[in-house]
Amino acid sequence: MSRLNKTKRRIWSVENGQMHRKSDYLATEEPLEIQLSAGGAQQTIAITMRTPGNDYELAAGFLYNEGIVADKHEIVQMTYCVGNERDLQEYNMLNVNLRTEQLPELPQLDRHFFTNSACGVCGKTVIEELAKRNLPPIPVGFQVSPALLSALPDALRQAQSLFDSTGGLHAAALFDSTGRLLELREDVGRHNALDKLIGWALLHKQLPFHDKIILVSGRASYELLQKCRVAGAPIFCAVSAPSSLAVELAAEFGITLIGFLRGARFNVYTGVERIAMPQPAIQKAGSD
Amino acid sequence: MSRLNKTKRRIWSVENGQMHRKSDYLATEEPLEIQLSAGGAQQTIAITMRTPGNDYELAAGFLYNEGIVADKHEIVQMTYCVGNERDLQEYNMLNVNLRTEQLPELPQLDRHFFTNSACGVCGKTVIEELAKRNLPPIPVGFQVSPALLSALPDALRQAQSLFDSTGGLHAAALFDSTGRLLELREDVGRHNALDKLIGWALLHKQLPFHDKIILVSGRASYELLQKCRVAGAPIFCAVSAPSSLAVELAAEFGITLIGFLRGARFNVYTGVERIAMPQPAIQKAGSD
Repeated sequence: MSRLNKTKRRIWSVENGQMHRKSDYLATEEPLEIQLSAGGAQQTIAITMRTPGNDYELAAGFLYNEGIVADKHEIVQMTYCVGNERDLQEYNMLNVNLRTEQLPELPQLDRHFFTNSACGVCGKTVIEELAKRNLPPIPVGFQVSPALLSALPDALRQAQSLFDSTGGLHAAALFDSTGRLLELREDVGRHNALDKLIGWALLHKQLPFHDKIILVSGRASYELLQKCRVAGAPIFCAVSAPSSLAVELAAEFGITLIGFLRGARFNVYTGVERIAMPQPAIQKAGSD
Repeated sequence: MSRLNKTKRRIWSVENGQMHRKSDYLATEEPLEIQLSAGGAQQTIAITMRTPGNDYELAAGFLYNEGIVADKHEIVQMTYCVGNERDLQEYNMLNVNLRTEQLPELPQLDRHFFTNSACGVCGKTVIEELAKRNLPPIPVGFQVSPALLSALPDALRQAQSLFDSTGGLHAAALFDSTGRLLELREDVGRHNALDKLIGWALLHKQLPFHDKIILVSGRASYELLQKCRVAGAPIFCAVSAPSSLAVELAAEFGITLIGFLRGARFNVYTGVERIAMPQPAIQKAGSD
């Protein structure tokens, strides 16, 4: 955990079949728990996955948008919580002390304020919860070539009929080990698109995805990696960037995470052993 | 409400200072409530904003990913709820009947399953809740030229320092009536970026945004329009597409909603009167 809004990491960059090692920055994704306090009482009202920085503004804007505070002066002070027992770092819990005698009534609290469809408080929680499910391990032997991966975005795009007409849909697609597109689902919600794809597989007895590749049209967040782990896919590709927590989870789960997959060039963040390189290219890369 | 995954709408297309009327399709965004039933009991476990279509898959995938069902045969059947009293349409509530004697224990239900930081069940709920707050109306007189709008994305991009290094951040920016960038916030979460921007304004006594323009780097969802309404901004611009519900809310709130703002070309979905066109161009457009 850190207060930094970006996280440095060593990755593999693949371009035209050549691979080299380099440093890259990831957008940091960490939980922020927002607590209200007033008249001696306190209550957690939101846990959101955010990029650290401007946390006071985030809390103030959230409370304003939800109608809990209407003016700056209704907030006495905001402080990070320190020394708590719950294994959360000090910069991931923020207390907002309100200038009222008691906590506001929030009748629809549960529906409104918890923020993600699969919100773990941190990567550790996600990993522990998944560990309880005794999922079969992700296979290690599965390998694909850079050329196969490079062809996937075009296949996705061609199949994305709804995007063509609206320009506003996220997509999640499933490919087999030869790069053939098996199914594609679209939704305004990135998580929904992947839920639909995995739901299709459940209903058609196509799980687990042990010899399959998942490709999403946008960014790779930690929830998508969590779903990929449950479905058992060894390779997860995103057309855009992964977050820091997505990379952490992919490493923990043993998933190959590929980002910025846009034709002949892409980045490999974890699980590079599943990328089948010609031998000379591997030796060259390994010397770095 | 509909079962269609796209929604047709008449919009204004602006290109190089010329405006014309045309039809366009929007990605449909509507709520789906997922209920579990078993042994005569039932419980809502999720409300998610989704694009209609493949709803059974969405529910099955969600339940699988959350560890509630592990196999297709644990689901007896899935049915849309009809004739309920809660003013929800029949295709927006799905019941999943489980092959168990009783509902599964979901100890962390509240944290895990409600899906959005500001999840209204439908646009009507959002509008009713905001109406209770007696927010001042959005000003009608504010106008800007197409040229001013066209320059905003470059200004946003140049100021997006974190995106430059990570490629993975959403941004929300505030501009004044001359097109000057006042503040910009970035986050892995689209809603967080706008919450931070509005929180900055609250803490610096810069609200409401009655003569300001908001620009976001991605798509326009209904939650972003909701936040725009609360902050009082008359013009909301997105670099990508708006959803159907975002357009509905913008129309209801009296906000000018601009999408696909990418230089000299953009779409105006609502509130076209705030776009100051040279007189001949308006007459030409009006003849359609």
